[in-house]
Amino acid sequence: MLYLKQFNWSLILYLLGHILVFEGVFMLIAFFVSLFYGESDIVGFEEAIAITFVMGIALSIAFKNSKYKRIGKKDSFIIVTITWVAISFFGSLPFYFSNTIPSFTNAFFESISGFTTTGSSILTDIESLPHGILFWRSLTHWIGGMGIIVLVVAIIPFLKIGGMHLFNAESSMSIEEKFRPRIFEVAKRLWYIYIGITVLEVVFLCLGGMNLFESVCHSFGTIATGGFSPKNDSIASYSPYIQYVIASFMLISGINFALHYLIISGRIKKAFANEELKLYLKIIFFVTAIIAIKLFTENIYGAEESFRQAFFQVVSIITATGFATADYLQWPTITYVLIFILMFVGACAGSTGGGIKVIRHLMFVKHIKRRFFEMSHSNAYCPIRYGKTVVSTEASGSAFNFIMVYIICFLLGSLLLIGLGNDIGTSMGGVITSMGGIGPGFGTVGPASTFAHLSVASKWILTFFMVLGRLEIFTLLVLFTPAFWKR
Amino acid sequence: MLYLKQFNWSLILYLLGHILVFEGVFMLIAFFVSLFYGESDIVGFEEAIAITFVMGIALSIAFKNSKYKRIGKKDSFIIVTITWVAISFFGSLPFYFSNTIPSFTNAFFESISGFTTTGSSILTDIESLPHGILFWRSLTHWIGGMGIIVLVVAIIPFLKIGGMHLFNAESSMSIEEKFRPRIFEVAKRLWYIYIGITVLEVVFLCLGGMNLFESVCHSFGTIATGGFSPKNDSIASYSPYIQYVIASFMLISGINFALHYLIISGRIKKAFANEELKLYLKIIFFVTAIIAIKLFTENIYGAEESFRQAFFQVVSIITATGFATADYLQWPTITYVLIFILMFVGACAGSTGGGIKVIRHLMFVKHIKRRFFEMSHSNAYCPIRYGKTVVSTEASGSAFNFIMVYIICFLLGSLLLIGLGNDIGTSMGGVITSMGGIGPGFGTVGPASTFAHLSVASKWILTFFMVLGRLEIFTLLVLFTPAFWKR
Repeated sequence: MLYLKQFNWSLILYLLGHILVFEGVFMLIAFFVSLFYGESDIVGFEEAIAITFVMGIALSIAFKNSKYKRIGKKDSFIIVTITWVAISFFGSLPFYFSNTIPSFTNAFFESISGFTTTGSSILTDIESLPHGILFWRSLTHWIGGMGIIVLVVAIIPFLKIGGMHLFNAESSMSIEEKFRPRIFEVAKRLWYIYIGITVLEVVFLCLGGMNLFESVCHSFGTIATGGFSPKNDSIASYSPYIQYVIASFMLISGINFALHYLIISGRIKKAFANEELKLYLKIIFFVTAIIAIKLFTENIYGAEESFRQAFFQVVSIITATGFATADYLQWPTITYVLIFILMFVGACAGSTGGGIKVIRHLMFVKHIKRRFFEMSHSNAYCPIRYGKTVVSTEASGSAFNFIMVYIICFLLGSLLLIGLGNDIGTSMGGVITSMGGIGPGFGTVGPASTFAHLSVASKWILTFFMVLGRLEIFTLLVLFTPAFWKR
Repeated sequence: MLYLKQFNWSLILYLLGHILVFEGVFMLIAFFVSLFYGESDIVGFEEAIAITFVMGIALSIAFKNSKYKRIGKKDSFIIVTITWVAISFFGSLPFYFSNTIPSFTNAFFESISGFTTTGSSILTDIESLPHGILFWRSLTHWIGGMGIIVLVVAIIPFLKIGGMHLFNAESSMSIEEKFRPRIFEVAKRLWYIYIGITVLEVVFLCLGGMNLFESVCHSFGTIATGGFSPKNDSIASYSPYIQYVIASFMLISGINFALHYLIISGRIKKAFANEELKLYLKIIFFVTAIIAIKLFTENIYGAEESFRQAFFQVVSIITATGFATADYLQWPTITYVLIFILMFVGACAGSTGGGIKVIRHLMFVKHIKRRFFEMSHSNAYCPIRYGKTVVSTEASGSAFNFIMVYIICFLLGSLLLIGLGNDIGTSMGGVITSMGGIGPGFGTVGPASTFAHLSVASKWILTFFMVLGRLEIFTLLVLFTPAFWKR
């Protein structure tokens, strides 16, 4: 039987109210941009902001006196899921009310694709949009990249206790038990680093001659590993300098923010000793090399451009950003098959990047290596180590679980889309790019295409997979198990 | 450093000698068929048999006095791998010497495809071949289906002790410790059942009007879940009765032989209580239903034929047989995508069927279910049960390992083939059909095509994957780990 009383609904709604107020504040920023350019989207923003604030304030006041300020582990799954659906819903209102995206399905798709930092778009002519809307579109990335929950945790002090659950339910930046009393500081520190890197990229882009508006939008898209660009052809027509800057910042954004903190505080050697980081860089290096050599030997580009195109696309896909400087579907088969596989790799845990994450693959490889070792030396004790720490079999096993469930979800999603009449490439590409939060896919949803032509049902399914991937699967899936709703 | 002295080489070679003698005896049977029809392949058989016998007898005599009659676990991996390569090599000689398959690569491909019960063929006009060769081709299936090692264990009594290792290294019919003293009887019993079902199918096929020669060949191909047919269009032009008979016997051959023994000895209820069997039948039922409905609603066939075609293809693929009555690549996309996924399912453990095996998927699902349960009830004790037995986390985890390593091998193999210039469908289809021991693939190696046009390198890679899959991956892969060769 359903046992709904086990959840702290009033606190859930109280928090949701706060989150909507936050969202309203972000919308205000976009509204000022709109005001500055004086374009047609102002009214749309006014309506959207009004609704969001009213809803947010109403919920905050109505559930102000929620009895327990304690968030349980199970509450956190509900809060996080509701939050992500809600911010995407309210976030779609500026698109919808300004009539820049007249279909609600499309507006919601664009909004959820923004917040989940996927970057898949249904817009066929991006450059025709007013600046305020373009700014809001990129801002959704930036809010979603670090996670709105992390933001709330950083700002609302009473969340210290339940904050950890929320934090872990939303992101891959799993906070260890020992940091629990300091969750408030940890969340704040993450946001400082996040803001810092964003500003740095804006400066570098402006130095390359990109105007401030585009620099800010692209920086939001880069640091959040989102992928929305205010340009129709993404990064393709910018100078090599700009492409290298963006590629470098994508690479940086795919690194664990805890390592950024180490680097900032001078412990550079310790940061680079990190096993996940080393593997992440190795993968980028080798796949870039293979693709660059292939592009060069097939005479598709010259030497420098082969390297640049390979490097940009590899970093863009592995970090799940999704910016493009070329249409990889026009390249030799082996290169885009490698890119397809990269979509299952993902960036480092604790970064803004999406996908399965390198550390899980690392654990998987160690796990398998041990299995083979045991086949030859049945009585040897062979613990799995990560750095200097011994990893429990349970922990390495949970990486396994994750990868397998991820693949199963991918297959089921692909089947669904194929069943709806999409071709195999589009279906598989669409689902994996949504789950990984990447952006471009394969088939008819490649880097040179949009998602506009998909059926309404296909679009809703993909939005589900975006949230599924952003919340690292289990947070959302557990809501579909009967055990969750029982006592 | 390599430490080769740890292996009992003289016993390994002594056993190999015996196995070659066995193979020579089987070749003699095909020779008599050839003699009976008086066709051109007689000389080819004479030469092949002479070489196989000489080699086998020479090894048996030279290593007769091997000091220890004990086979270690690590020895067993070497014996089994060498055996499979050797029998495939000698088994290719009749094709090669009779000049029916003039290229050695092709002859070896056909032979290893036969022994591993894959059933992928490089022959473009099967019906032009002499009867002796066609018989040998089907006989390789039958030898490989139950496993030549199981045969040797059943016949050489001194193998009682090491036999279990050999047995487990070769097949998924893992023998439990408690049966160890009775391994000799178990192996014998398996062969009796195997022969019994084969004879039964021959009778049913003859009753349907198929001539004795074709009945025997098809029965070999069915019971071993092989897939070679003496006909160019496989089972397509036979009557519905014949198609139902073959489909039913494929289904039966995909069931654990231990359950057959239960059924024969009257414990039918106990057999049908088996969880793996139930899931196996459910999968067949549901996938058949979906495909049949799709075929019918798209007006591709009438009602009965839709069911028959769906049922035949589903059973043929899930059991890894590979007989065909239709070219599924001409069907709607969703149907052959389902067939592609079935290639990763496999039959029941302890059957002659290939693939990952249903029980591993079952363990996987239970494992994941528990994980979700624990997310909602963190302190509950929730053991995994199979039937009435509690399964250790280690055992359910090893099913996990297997599935993941299987998928990794599949991906690497596909990449290799794509890198060699094959298209994506052909590459993925070719590798999974080889690993699973199925037969037909996708792209240019579908049910209506052959493997003849592939490059020499692609063919050799696929033969590797056939052995890899037949030996359930770990037995072969462990030979490539440095730890295996160290002290």
